[in-house]
Amino acid sequence: MKEYSFNEFLTSKIDVDQKNLSELLSQCPRKEFQKGSFLNFSGDLCDTTFFVEKGLLRQYSIDNKGKEHILQFAPEGWWVTDRESTFFNKPSKYNVDALEDTTVFILKQELLDKLEKVIPNFTAFNNELLNNHIRHLQNRITLLLSATAEERYLTFTKMYPDILSRVPQLMVASYLGITPESLSRVRKELASKSSNSNS
Amino acid sequence: MKEYSFNEFLTSKIDVDQKNLSELLSQCPRKEFQKGSFLNFSGDLCDTTFFVEKGLLRQYSIDNKGKEHILQFAPEGWWVTDRESTFFNKPSKYNVDALEDTTVFILKQELLDKLEKVIPNFTAFNNELLNNHIRHLQNRITLLLSATAEERYLTFTKMYPDILSRVPQLMVASYLGITPESLSRVRKELASKSSNSNS
Repeated sequence: MKEYSFNEFLTSKIDVDQKNLSELLSQCPRKEFQKGSFLNFSGDLCDTTFFVEKGLLRQYSIDNKGKEHILQFAPEGWWVTDRESTFFNKPSKYNVDALEDTTVFILKQELLDKLEKVIPNFTAFNNELLNNHIRHLQNRITLLLSATAEERYLTFTKMYPDILSRVPQLMVASYLGITPESLSRVRKELASKSSNSNS
Repeated sequence: MKEYSFNEFLTSKIDVDQKNLSELLSQCPRKEFQKGSFLNFSGDLCDTTFFVEKGLLRQYSIDNKGKEHILQFAPEGWWVTDRESTFFNKPSKYNVDALEDTTVFILKQELLDKLEKVIPNFTAFNNELLNNHIRHLQNRITLLLSATAEERYLTFTKMYPDILSRVPQLMVASYLGITPESLSRVRKELASKSSNSNS
């Protein structure tokens, strides 16, 4: 997938004086993480929000039987944050690791304060981001409570169109809250439906 | 449970000029709903946020087999909103109904704009509310993905201490995403543990 800079993200979403923004962002840290490395461990405070410019992150918890449960994938243009930790200063429940070599733009409160000064509508924009996050999480809960394995899978492929080729099936099943066997069955059934409708 | 006015809620959370606030809120609509009546139907736009002053609301979806799935309960001091509908103008996926005779304080965008003028820190406060909502939803997802029926139940009783005596067990099971039989088993096991430790 194409690299997607934080600057590009902001200017596509909101009116902003490009010169002021570029100056500000040029002072901000970007960080590269090799595939397999960790950006945060559960139990630690996570006071940082990551914006993925290139690569792919995973945010997940581990239950007391050692099983992983994926809260989200974050390819290019997605955010990873744990509000409970960032905003309420609690140790995070989540690990964050890089599933590919990944470049992230790092946002801390200090930068958000500066962005509010440079971008007149930044507060309203940030408010929209928070509302959008809530919308996604509510939809995820409703899917987990009520959707069949097939419905979950189809919603996933719509939301993350290129992820299927980038992560193991086991992780997709973990995200969907279904067994790998159910995922495999659903994919076969959908492939069969698709080949029948094409024949 | 004790009635909890929106005015009381705001003044307990944030510095505010009580005279200005009382004047503003006195012009705002409160509405009473009889037990069993609906505040919103799925498929309709829901441009309103409800703050429960007295009583108990339920927000839930119905799957295509007609089964109900509860997104949240809202007793006194809780909010009910569907950001996807309120903020992004999509038809709501959720029904909202009153499980008891309920009085709600009604918030629309117009009131939020006025509150920003009367309360200097309202924007920051609203930001905190949104972050808190995200925290709750993330925790709920992690519970649905990874927690045992007992863990879900114990988290529920902590978050909603007095709800168990106010709603049928079937609804509690629906909220937890477990079968009524699992809920019954968990409750028996916990009661047995508790009586053993007391004997």
